[in-house]
Amino acid sequence: MALVAAAGPACVAVKPQLACFERLGFPGWVALEATVAHARDQGLLVIADAKRGDIAGSALAYQQAVFGGLETPHGASPGLGADAVTQNPLLGRDALAPFVAGARTAGAGVFVLVRTSNPGAADLFDVELATGGKLWELIAGLVAAAGTPGPISGLADVGAVCGATVPAHLARMRELMPCAPFLLPGIGAQGGAVADLAPAFAPGRAGGLVSASRSIANAHETAACAPAEAARAEAERLREQAWALG
Amino acid sequence: MALVAAAGPACVAVKPQLACFERLGFPGWVALEATVAHARDQGLLVIADAKRGDIAGSALAYQQAVFGGLETPHGASPGLGADAVTQNPLLGRDALAPFVAGARTAGAGVFVLVRTSNPGAADLFDVELATGGKLWELIAGLVAAAGTPGPISGLADVGAVCGATVPAHLARMRELMPCAPFLLPGIGAQGGAVADLAPAFAPGRAGGLVSASRSIANAHETAACAPAEAARAEAERLREQAWALG
Repeated sequence: MALVAAAGPACVAVKPQLACFERLGFPGWVALEATVAHARDQGLLVIADAKRGDIAGSALAYQQAVFGGLETPHGASPGLGADAVTQNPLLGRDALAPFVAGARTAGAGVFVLVRTSNPGAADLFDVELATGGKLWELIAGLVAAAGTPGPISGLADVGAVCGATVPAHLARMRELMPCAPFLLPGIGAQGGAVADLAPAFAPGRAGGLVSASRSIANAHETAACAPAEAARAEAERLREQAWALG
Repeated sequence: MALVAAAGPACVAVKPQLACFERLGFPGWVALEATVAHARDQGLLVIADAKRGDIAGSALAYQQAVFGGLETPHGASPGLGADAVTQNPLLGRDALAPFVAGARTAGAGVFVLVRTSNPGAADLFDVELATGGKLWELIAGLVAAAGTPGPISGLADVGAVCGATVPAHLARMRELMPCAPFLLPGIGAQGGAVADLAPAFAPGRAGGLVSASRSIANAHETAACAPAEAARAEAERLREQAWALG
């Protein structure tokens, strides 16, 4: 929460990684709910980095977990109340649909993994298909088809996680998904650079959402100032770089 | 827990679907921990149906959540203590590795999604690759390469989730993954039939793990007896069918 308070003013969203909370058991889930509430109190959007994906009935339950809206015999379960969730598309369109429907009801969004930022992403995302193109291009097509553009922003409610470690992909991604907001992990600790992200911002500043976690949280390790100050300075530096592109 | 008590004696494992607990927030996580403890007390294996998949650092945290073993400044966090977890392979080998390593340390196992049981599985798992074969066959190769066979059972510690709704796949799956235990969802409510699963049991009875949830939990809807009795009878019927094949 200290990190949210320090870096928050230079950010538009926080992206809690659910794994880091789940490994603490139910106290971790309590901490997750508190972190989400704190971020929303600060006026930040919350992207639940959950990378969930399951068959339709389970997908429905997962979207209830992140967005909320489950009625139980003991009253309504509020869910996390996230503004968006990351979603794994491997199980196909019928597994994606409940997340998109749940997001629409909640006025929220979904970011589908189109091509992640890790080295192993090449194993499956990058395989060449018999019909031409790579698997991630097929996924990008599903994302473009699933989203509905908003009336004011023109951006769709189904976005894409596009690893920033292979910037050469971004122009093609924007071609395949003209209206999708891009969530761009891999900046900083994973080696990606904001300067390479211009295609993501083609529809305007809100078209790209640069995600940097370790480079902000650990900024004090290389800075000559207090951790909170270092985190905020790094977040502001990244924002300036990104907005200079948009 | 009543269901575990009723059907447990006819089963070898329970497979809690984490989505159903997560949507209840932290009380749901408390209930999950209690359910896992109860199942283990009954001598049942626990397969955490989590379908997690993330880049290496997050994958490490997820495996700590399901298997345990995280040291914190406030003491060790026990984790769920599951015997196995379902794993989504889309992010590639470096995302799979922390789960396999964590499972080995815990004396547990991993079931990788090779081809799921839902209709939408055809969208990505079944796409034809430029090098020949389908995406699920490529995933099956990763699974076979990742596992190490146990000295007594001969079965590997990395298994495969193989949807039982397309039994025509099973013989090819067994060919590609000769030592992998197969977790076979899709029996019952999703339309799969135990009689079609013979290739899964090729290495012996333990080679196939038939997963039936709704058909056991909802057996009383079509039976002329109490819910507990109906659940147990359906579990016993499925077991007899499966063991007649092995």
